[in-house]
Amino acid sequence: MFALAEYRQRLNSLKKRMVDEGVDVLLVSNPSNMYYLSNYSAWSFYVHQMMIITLEDDQPLWIGRQMDALGVSKTTWLDDQHIISYPDYYVQSKERHPVDFVTNILTEIGQSNRVIGVEMDVHYFTGLCYERLRAGLPNATIKDTSSIVNMVRLIKSDQEIDYMRKAAKIVESAMHAAYDSIAVGTRECDVAAAIYYAQIKGTPEYGGDYTSIVPMLPTNENTSCPHLTWTDRKYEIGDFVTLELAGAYKRYHAPMARTMAVGQAPSRVKDLALVVEEGIETTLDAIKPGIRAEEVEQVWRNTIAKYGHHKNSRLGYSVGLSFPPDWGEHTISLRPGDKSVLQPNMTFHLMPGIWYEDYGVEITETILITEKGVETLTKFPRSLYEKMDHPFVDKYSS
Amino acid sequence: MFALAEYRQRLNSLKKRMVDEGVDVLLVSNPSNMYYLSNYSAWSFYVHQMMIITLEDDQPLWIGRQMDALGVSKTTWLDDQHIISYPDYYVQSKERHPVDFVTNILTEIGQSNRVIGVEMDVHYFTGLCYERLRAGLPNATIKDTSSIVNMVRLIKSDQEIDYMRKAAKIVESAMHAAYDSIAVGTRECDVAAAIYYAQIKGTPEYGGDYTSIVPMLPTNENTSCPHLTWTDRKYEIGDFVTLELAGAYKRYHAPMARTMAVGQAPSRVKDLALVVEEGIETTLDAIKPGIRAEEVEQVWRNTIAKYGHHKNSRLGYSVGLSFPPDWGEHTISLRPGDKSVLQPNMTFHLMPGIWYEDYGVEITETILITEKGVETLTKFPRSLYEKMDHPFVDKYSS
Repeated sequence: MFALAEYRQRLNSLKKRMVDEGVDVLLVSNPSNMYYLSNYSAWSFYVHQMMIITLEDDQPLWIGRQMDALGVSKTTWLDDQHIISYPDYYVQSKERHPVDFVTNILTEIGQSNRVIGVEMDVHYFTGLCYERLRAGLPNATIKDTSSIVNMVRLIKSDQEIDYMRKAAKIVESAMHAAYDSIAVGTRECDVAAAIYYAQIKGTPEYGGDYTSIVPMLPTNENTSCPHLTWTDRKYEIGDFVTLELAGAYKRYHAPMARTMAVGQAPSRVKDLALVVEEGIETTLDAIKPGIRAEEVEQVWRNTIAKYGHHKNSRLGYSVGLSFPPDWGEHTISLRPGDKSVLQPNMTFHLMPGIWYEDYGVEITETILITEKGVETLTKFPRSLYEKMDHPFVDKYSS
Repeated sequence: MFALAEYRQRLNSLKKRMVDEGVDVLLVSNPSNMYYLSNYSAWSFYVHQMMIITLEDDQPLWIGRQMDALGVSKTTWLDDQHIISYPDYYVQSKERHPVDFVTNILTEIGQSNRVIGVEMDVHYFTGLCYERLRAGLPNATIKDTSSIVNMVRLIKSDQEIDYMRKAAKIVESAMHAAYDSIAVGTRECDVAAAIYYAQIKGTPEYGGDYTSIVPMLPTNENTSCPHLTWTDRKYEIGDFVTLELAGAYKRYHAPMARTMAVGQAPSRVKDLALVVEEGIETTLDAIKPGIRAEEVEQVWRNTIAKYGHHKNSRLGYSVGLSFPPDWGEHTISLRPGDKSVLQPNMTFHLMPGIWYEDYGVEITETILITEKGVETLTKFPRSLYEKMDHPFVDKYSS
C-alpha cells in the first residue's frame, strides 16, 4: 500500500477536478481507479462494485458484494463505515440489480439530487447499470466523467515510477525467457508458459503480478494480427514471431514488444525492423517535456515515411496501473489531434508496431518523461532477434 | 474451430430464440458469445467491437477495430463481406465513438427501425455504448437480451464437453503443481508461477489457454476473502491456503478449488473441510437430470446445517467457454429461487466454498450432468491437503 498521505493527495486532486467539472458526487466503476484511490485489488470486478466519492467525505465509500467486503476491509485504508455490501442474491439476478442498491444508498445519504459524475465508457459500467442509475435517481443530473480519475493518474509519483521500474525488470526477464525457449520443435504454448512463469515469479527481491493483457505471440502471417495470443503449434525454422508482453508489479505495468525469428528472419521483416528501430531512435531523441502528443507521432511518421512506410494506428498511449482487459490508461494517445503536453513523470507505451497484410514487426518500449527528456524504463536491447545459434538450425538448414 | 455445421446450428438456435423474444436484430458485445458464434478469440475486446445478427443473414456481421479485422478473417468462418472495421481514430476518442459507426452500419443495411436486442448487462457494453445506440437509432425498439446467447450455450455439444475434459486435465496438473511447490520458505508468487506454467503448457498432447480468472490463493485469515490473488510473502509452517484455479482449453474452462496446509491445518479448518466434503458427496448423489437448480442447493444447505454451518452465497453456476473477467456463464445459479431444470450436457462449477470472518475452506468441482446423473469432470482427490511430509516441517516443528 502507498502511504496514507499519497491516497489523501490523490483524493484531493480528484476533488479539485470534480469541482472544476461541476460534479458533486462521483461513481467509480473502473477497477484501476478503485485501486488507485483505495488499494483494493481483488479479482471481484466480475460482479458489479462501485465507489462513491463525495466532495464532503474524506474517504471513498465502497459498495460491492458481501463476500468481498472483508477483503476491502483487510487491504485498503477505508474504515469499516465506508464499506457497504449487497447480499449475494443481487449477483447476476434477473430480479435485482446492484445499481438499485447503489441508488438506494445515494438516496439515503442525501445525494440523489446532485450532479453525479459517471464513468460512462469504462468496462464494468454496463448499459444496464446506466439505465438503472437513471431510473433510480430521477432528480440527479448525470455527467460523463469517464476519465476524471485517469487524468489524475497521468503524472506518477516517485513510488509509482519505482513500481514501474520493477515491472520493467520483470518484462525483461519474461522476454529473456521467451528468447531462451523459442526453438524449432517447441510449441507456442511452451513459450507462453515460460513467459508466464517469469512474469509471475518476478525477481528474487519481489514477486510479479498478473498483467492486464495476456502475452500475445502471433507467428508468421499472423504477425499481421497483433492481438492473437498463442496456439500449440510447434515452431519451424524460418518462423518469425512478434512478442508483446508486460511485466506487472502491484498492478503497475511496463509493456514491451520484440520480434524474434527461429533461424533467419525473412528479409522484409529485417528491413522493416531496421526502419522501426530508426523510427524509435529518432522519436526518442525528440521527446522532452513540453512536446505535444501529436508532435511525437509526427516525428515518427516523417521518419518511417522516408522509407515508404506508414502506420495506421496510434504510436502509443499512457500506461501505469491497470486491470484487465487493458493496460492502457485511456488518457493521452500519441496520434494526430491529441494536443496533450507531455510532462515529467508521465509514462507511455511507445508502440511503433507496424502491421501489413501478411507480416508485422513490433519493437516497443515503456518510457518515462523526465525533467530533461525521456528515459526508456524497459532495458532490453532493441533489435530483431534471430536465433541462429540454436542447435536445431543446423539440422534443418543443412 | 468447430465444424461449420455446429456454428450453423448455434446460429439457428439463436435465431429461434430471437423470434421467440420478438427480436429482429441482435447486437452481441460479450467476447464469449462472439467466440461461440464465430471462433474469434483475439484479445481485442479492450476496444469496442460487436457482432450484428439479423434473422435474414446466415452469418454474423463483425464490426471492430481496423487492426483486428484481419484476425477475424484468418480465424473465423465469416466471409470478408461480414467483417467491417472502423479506423483507429475511433479508439478511446472524445470526438468519435465506435457505436456511432455501428449505428451508421445498421442504418445502411436497413435495420435502424427494427426491434434490436442488446446485451445490456455485459461488460464491454458500456453505459456510453447504450447512450450512443439510443441516440443513433431513434426509431429502433431496444430490448434487453443480455443472456440470449448464453442460454443457447447452456447445453454443450459433445465436442464442447471434450474441450472441458481437456481443460479439467489441465487444472488437475495445475493443482498438482501447486501442491508440489507450496512449502515453508516458498513465496506465494512462486506457487502462482508454477500454477501458471502448468496451466499454459497444458499436456504433451495439447496446450493450455489462459483462464478468465487468475489463480486465487489467499492464505490464513485471508482465506475469508476468496478473490484475493497472491503476494510475495513466504509460507510458514501452519499456513493454510485456498486455491481456486481453472484449466482452459480453447477458451473452455474447468474450475476447481482445493484447500492446502503447510504442515498441520488448524482444527477448525479440518472440521469445516469434512463438512464441505460430506456436503459435496450428498449433493452429488442428489444431482440428476430433471432436478431444479434450487433443489440442488437445498440438499447442500440441509447437509451442512446439521453441523451448524451456513453458506451465504450461491452453491455454483454454469460454466463453459469464457473470456475475462469471469468464467461463469451468467445463466443458471444453484441458489434459492432459481427454478431452472438441470439437463444432460449442462456443466457447472459446483462451488461449495464457505467463508467466515477469519478463515474459509474451498473444495470445488466442475460437474457434467449426464443422462443418468452427474459426472465430476475434475478428478483430483477431494480432501484437505496437509504437506506433513515436507522436509521443512521437521525443521520448524522440532
